[in-house]
Amino acid sequence: MATGTLLYAQSGGVTAVINASASAVIQAARAKKVRVLGARNGILGALREELVDASKLSAAEVRALAHTPGGAFGSCRVKLKSLQADRAKYERLLEVFRAHDVRWFLYNGGNDSADTALKVSQLAAEFGYPLTCVGVPKTVDNDLAVTDCCPGFGSAAKYTAVSLRECALDVAAMAETSTKVFVYEAMGRHAGWLAAAAGLAGTGANDAPHIILFPERAYDEADFLARVDAVVKRVGHCVVAASEGIRGADGKFVADAGAGTDSFGHAQLGGVASHLAGRVKDMLGHKVHWALPDYLQRSARHIASKTDLEQALAVGRAAVECALAGQNAVMPVIVRTNDSPYRWHVDIAPLAKIANHEKKMPASFIRKDGYGITAAARRYLTPLIAGEAPPPYGKEGLPAYVEPKLTLVRKKLPAWAG
Amino acid sequence: MATGTLLYAQSGGVTAVINASASAVIQAARAKKVRVLGARNGILGALREELVDASKLSAAEVRALAHTPGGAFGSCRVKLKSLQADRAKYERLLEVFRAHDVRWFLYNGGNDSADTALKVSQLAAEFGYPLTCVGVPKTVDNDLAVTDCCPGFGSAAKYTAVSLRECALDVAAMAETSTKVFVYEAMGRHAGWLAAAAGLAGTGANDAPHIILFPERAYDEADFLARVDAVVKRVGHCVVAASEGIRGADGKFVADAGAGTDSFGHAQLGGVASHLAGRVKDMLGHKVHWALPDYLQRSARHIASKTDLEQALAVGRAAVECALAGQNAVMPVIVRTNDSPYRWHVDIAPLAKIANHEKKMPASFIRKDGYGITAAARRYLTPLIAGEAPPPYGKEGLPAYVEPKLTLVRKKLPAWAG
Repeated sequence: MATGTLLYAQSGGVTAVINASASAVIQAARAKKVRVLGARNGILGALREELVDASKLSAAEVRALAHTPGGAFGSCRVKLKSLQADRAKYERLLEVFRAHDVRWFLYNGGNDSADTALKVSQLAAEFGYPLTCVGVPKTVDNDLAVTDCCPGFGSAAKYTAVSLRECALDVAAMAETSTKVFVYEAMGRHAGWLAAAAGLAGTGANDAPHIILFPERAYDEADFLARVDAVVKRVGHCVVAASEGIRGADGKFVADAGAGTDSFGHAQLGGVASHLAGRVKDMLGHKVHWALPDYLQRSARHIASKTDLEQALAVGRAAVECALAGQNAVMPVIVRTNDSPYRWHVDIAPLAKIANHEKKMPASFIRKDGYGITAAARRYLTPLIAGEAPPPYGKEGLPAYVEPKLTLVRKKLPAWAG
Repeated sequence: MATGTLLYAQSGGVTAVINASASAVIQAARAKKVRVLGARNGILGALREELVDASKLSAAEVRALAHTPGGAFGSCRVKLKSLQADRAKYERLLEVFRAHDVRWFLYNGGNDSADTALKVSQLAAEFGYPLTCVGVPKTVDNDLAVTDCCPGFGSAAKYTAVSLRECALDVAAMAETSTKVFVYEAMGRHAGWLAAAAGLAGTGANDAPHIILFPERAYDEADFLARVDAVVKRVGHCVVAASEGIRGADGKFVADAGAGTDSFGHAQLGGVASHLAGRVKDMLGHKVHWALPDYLQRSARHIASKTDLEQALAVGRAAVECALAGQNAVMPVIVRTNDSPYRWHVDIAPLAKIANHEKKMPASFIRKDGYGITAAARRYLTPLIAGEAPPPYGKEGLPAYVEPKLTLVRKKLPAWAG
């Protein structure tokens, strides 16, 4: 039995499978008889000393987390700045860690979270406090460096491809006398991974989505409208998958919700689909509909990818192994060794190579004309949405998701003034 | 072997299970060795003599239709007017029917379609043409009279309840530092059935959806905003399910997409969620997100309700039995005999009782304060979303939906000039 406590925290936008990583972390730690605490609402809980006693969760609850979307411990959008600028916060973290004998800190998030975990590990070293910091990858945006893919993305990608295929069948059936152009808005601020996943819905030249708009390519309205009209003439209808983050040649977001920026400094977006639909209607006169699935796409555990679930579980387990082995400032990552049949394993990468980097889609994944995906993109994406992993359902017809009661451990420090 | 041809047509908005009714119709007719034609794009195909030869569909294709959303033969939004106003069209229909020896006409749609089927049967009687017209119920709006529920609704309701539950877990996890108010927009022009289905996502006073807005109650912005704010203060976040058709006390739709009216004369709506979200942000200052699933909610065969699928199959089979038995101007309907355990059977109702009627939700289904559903609503709705009926999946991770090649029979008449 290792002495000390393992602290697990969730960060940033939650996914359909981040709780699966949490489940794997808790199960792996329990197998090693290591005490686990969960930070309430991510790093905020660590700062406030709001720490969930994971030992109060039953084995059944922990197992059920693996099929429950959302973030069971709560997550947050709070980014710590540099060690200089936010020194008091980092020192407070170490104070809380020391008070609860936290020797292993697992931070489940994206590139911002990798940066925080890295800085915490640096300050601990500076203070001579024995702490092992390990990142656990997660993001529907699939924009983490080093790892071949990010847990959370595959399920959102499967939701996207399946939904696109389904609504395309609907539109095709009705197009003669009803909606001729349908616009689906996919998440993805700067990288068009989810918009690309929509491309898996069809394979033939006349299959939906007929047009994909990527943030990696400048949006040209006149060219877009001409293509929409040509597809309507050729196919009878046109289904568009648009990334929320598309920008014009001037670099400005096509649709800015006007909500300013979030606490990570990212512009808050929304409304690309409604903007495009409006332009199609006004300029081409076609009847249009649009869909904005928003959080539905990242929380759709009911249509999770089996590959994604297995990887979320694997990185959780691996993170505990790394931590207990004292591998500091690292993150388990997915390494792909073959596309078809798909083969992958978990490797360990330094957080320094991941923190604050943002992986864009390879240019080779976007068709030369800029409006579709290539065979290389299909080879990459297909295994990530493969396999089904439905949750159990209750007899009332709803998935048997759990919302465990969270018991906080007694505080040992004065309240945080930050 | 009965002589003559059975013509099947799909009408109005398609659903996740209308093709299941088509599958049942074809299988039931084949079992009786009756020839089946399908009208291409609903009544338009009948007018244009664009008739699909269903005998060209393989048994596997017909079976696969039962797990494929959309409308395999094509549907349309075309409403025939009165026998006087559209007499030439009705006569053309009979001319086409006579040319192809159509003795049974099955029209799969909502209350407008029931009206068309009824009028065709009246004209056939007037002309002494032996024709049996049978409606097959279908609509996600659940607004057909007589029948206890409408095939198509249960699956859309299940999609709604599951999606609401999933995104609510997401919002709850992030609310402290991110989105505090989430608005989900459900279909339903005049009846709040799908918004009510969202209510199944939670049972406790603090469970999402915290507020439901029904078209049956006048929307009062000040009261709504005060409730949102109170929920945010009490729970930490607020999830709203809003029907697209809500109207203010003045009777005007809260959000009109400005697209005018469709060919049924219904206002084309959209944008309630974005409107409400904007008001919450401007008046209360909370960070908001919203989702508009649009066609995704009615085409989501991947999350179909087993009850709904079984009823869609049952009404298809029953319609063929009625037709072959010469029961004219009728529609198979669902009769419920018990809520729990759920028991139902198919009965036969006259089209005259269904045509052009619109069933609203019983007042007893809406909570006294107007913002939630009652126990009676739960008793009614729960069995309709019960059971799972997932489609088979291919190894590429997508449902194995079929898009059968449609072969038209040779035309026998001059082109339709209408």
